[in-house]
Amino acid sequence: MGPAPLVLSLGEPAGIGPEIVAKAWTALSAESPFAVIGDRALLEAQGVRVVEIGAPGDAASVFARGLPVLHHPAPAPVEPGRPDPRNAAVVADWIERAVGLALSGEASGVVTAPIAKAPLYAAGFRFPGHTEFIAELTADAPFAGTRGPVMMLTAQDLRACLVTIHVALDQVPELVTAERVCRTARVVHEAMKRDFGIASPRLALAALNPHAGEGGALGLQEIEVLRPAAEALRAEGIAITDPLPADTLFHAEARATYDAAICLYHDQALIPVKTLDFWGGVNATLGLPIVRTSPDHGTGFEIAGKGVARADSLIAAIRLASTMAAARATR
Amino acid sequence: MGPAPLVLSLGEPAGIGPEIVAKAWTALSAESPFAVIGDRALLEAQGVRVVEIGAPGDAASVFARGLPVLHHPAPAPVEPGRPDPRNAAVVADWIERAVGLALSGEASGVVTAPIAKAPLYAAGFRFPGHTEFIAELTADAPFAGTRGPVMMLTAQDLRACLVTIHVALDQVPELVTAERVCRTARVVHEAMKRDFGIASPRLALAALNPHAGEGGALGLQEIEVLRPAAEALRAEGIAITDPLPADTLFHAEARATYDAAICLYHDQALIPVKTLDFWGGVNATLGLPIVRTSPDHGTGFEIAGKGVARADSLIAAIRLASTMAAARATR
Repeated sequence: MGPAPLVLSLGEPAGIGPEIVAKAWTALSAESPFAVIGDRALLEAQGVRVVEIGAPGDAASVFARGLPVLHHPAPAPVEPGRPDPRNAAVVADWIERAVGLALSGEASGVVTAPIAKAPLYAAGFRFPGHTEFIAELTADAPFAGTRGPVMMLTAQDLRACLVTIHVALDQVPELVTAERVCRTARVVHEAMKRDFGIASPRLALAALNPHAGEGGALGLQEIEVLRPAAEALRAEGIAITDPLPADTLFHAEARATYDAAICLYHDQALIPVKTLDFWGGVNATLGLPIVRTSPDHGTGFEIAGKGVARADSLIAAIRLASTMAAARATR
Repeated sequence: MGPAPLVLSLGEPAGIGPEIVAKAWTALSAESPFAVIGDRALLEAQGVRVVEIGAPGDAASVFARGLPVLHHPAPAPVEPGRPDPRNAAVVADWIERAVGLALSGEASGVVTAPIAKAPLYAAGFRFPGHTEFIAELTADAPFAGTRGPVMMLTAQDLRACLVTIHVALDQVPELVTAERVCRTARVVHEAMKRDFGIASPRLALAALNPHAGEGGALGLQEIEVLRPAAEALRAEGIAITDPLPADTLFHAEARATYDAAICLYHDQALIPVKTLDFWGGVNATLGLPIVRTSPDHGTGFEIAGKGVARADSLIAAIRLASTMAAARATR
C-alpha cells in the first residue's frame, strides 16, 4: 500500500462522468494517482483498462497499468444522455462512500464528477447539491477551524470565493450580511493557510454595487455592511481590503495583489472565472474536514456517449485536490 | 480642408486628459487625424508640438507636424490632481462645442476624455455624466432610428451593451423591464448595422439570475420578463437569443457566436470587459445622431501630472470612433 490517494465519485452515470474520468486517467498517468468509486462496466465501456481494487491504498501501485476502481455497481442499465431515477440512490452512495474514505484517512481527498439534480430529487435526495450533501456527511467529523462550506472557483491564478451561491439576484442584497461576509472570509483565510500553504493570505473583498457604491450614491451596502465587515476582519488579523469595484478586480495586475477574492454572488465570481478559463475552471469546497474539489461544469447529457467531452476541468480538479491534500498533510 | 476628422474634448483639465491626448497624437500620427477642443497651453505642457487651427477640417493637413487644437482656454490655473470648480463650465463648453461640430458635420464624431463629476456638480451641471449630457445636446437633431443613449463597452472582440447602468444592484431587478430590454436591443441592432456595417447582427441576451434562473428555481425574471422580450424582438426581425447564463457568455468561443451582448447591469458587462482588456476598453454611446466614444476609465487624479498615464483606452476609443464614423459615412 502506498500513501492515501484521491478518490473520485463517478457522478451521474448517464452523463459525461465515465468518459472524462477515463480521459483523466489517461492524461494523468502516475502524476496524481486516484481511485474511482463507481461501476467498473461504465469505465470499461470507455475503452480503458480497468483494475478492480479492494481499498484506495492499492490505487498507486496499479495506476500505471489500469484505472483503479472500487467497484460499486449501478442497479439499472445506463443509457448515455438519459438519467434513470433507479440509479439515483447509487450516485449518492458513491459520494457517501468517497467521503467516508476521506474521513477515515484512506483517501487524501474527494473529487466529485457532476451529478444531475432532477433524478436525485425525484428519488428523494434532499440537498441542493454536492456541496451541502458533503457538508452534512462531514458535519460530525472533528475540524480545527471555521467550518464552511464555502464554494471557491478557480481559473488561472484567480481564486474566487462566494458569500451567496445559488439564489436569485434580487435576494442577494439582503443575504449579503456582515456576518456572512465575515464567516466566508474566515473560512477562506484559514483555507489559504491550511490548504494552499500561504502563510499570510491577502483577501480582496468585492463590492456589491457599481463603482463600489461611489460613496453611497450607487448603493449603501459598501458603507453599511461591507466596510464594517472588512474592518472587523482586519481587527481579527485577517488581511482583507475594503470593498473594491468588482469590474477592476479580475484582470491580471489586480489578481496579483491578492490570494483570494471574496465575491458576493454567483455571477460576480463565475463571470471572471469562466471568461478567463472556460474549460479548466475548478470548484473547491473550503472549510470542510476533508479536501473536496470538482469540475465546474454539469453532466453534459447532450454530449454524453459521443466521446467529445473535455476532461480539462476534471483534470484540473484532480490536480488542485492533490495540491490541497499535500498542503494539509504537511501541517 | 480635408474630410471631417474626429474632435476630442479635453475633459477634466486637472486629470490625465491632456497627457493621454498628447500621447494619442504621438501614437496615431496620420492614422486617424483628430482635432482637440481645449486649452492649448495644457497640451503644450505635455511636451508636444501644438498647432492651433480654426476649424476641424484643417486638422488632417497639420496632423503630421503638430497636435491640432481648437483653442478654448480654461479660465483658472490648472494644478494636476486638484480639480478647480472655476474650470467646470469650460469643461462642459468643450463637450458642447465638440458635439455641435459633429452635429454640423464639421466633425465625423466626438471622443470625450474623462470628466470629474464632483466639480461639475458643484458648478451646477445637472447631468449624471457625459452620456446623458450628450443625449440632451443631440435631442433635437434628426435621427433615423431608435434613439438611445445605450452604453456599449468593448474589449477585444466583445461588445457589451447595457440595459441599466449606474444604479445600485438592488434596483436592477425592477428596472430590467421588457420595455427597457427591447428598446436597448433595438438600438444595438440598428447600431450594429449602421455603425459597424454588420448586415445581420446577432445579439446575445444575458440572464439576470445564476444559471439563467434554472427553470424558475433561481428567479423568475427569465421566464416572466426576458424570454418574452426576446420573443417579441425576434418577431420584429431582430436576431436575439433567449436569456443565457451570464457566466458562460464571455469566453472566446461564446463571443464568436454573437456580435453584441445585451447585459442587464453594470458589473455584468464591465467585469468581462475589464477582465479581458483592462487597459484598452472603450465606451461608445449608441443610438445618437452623432458618433461618440470615450476611454472607459476616469480622470486619474492620483497619477495626473506624473507622466505615467496610459493612453491605450483613448487610442482605442479614437480608432473605434473612426471605424464607426466611416461605417456611417458609407450608408
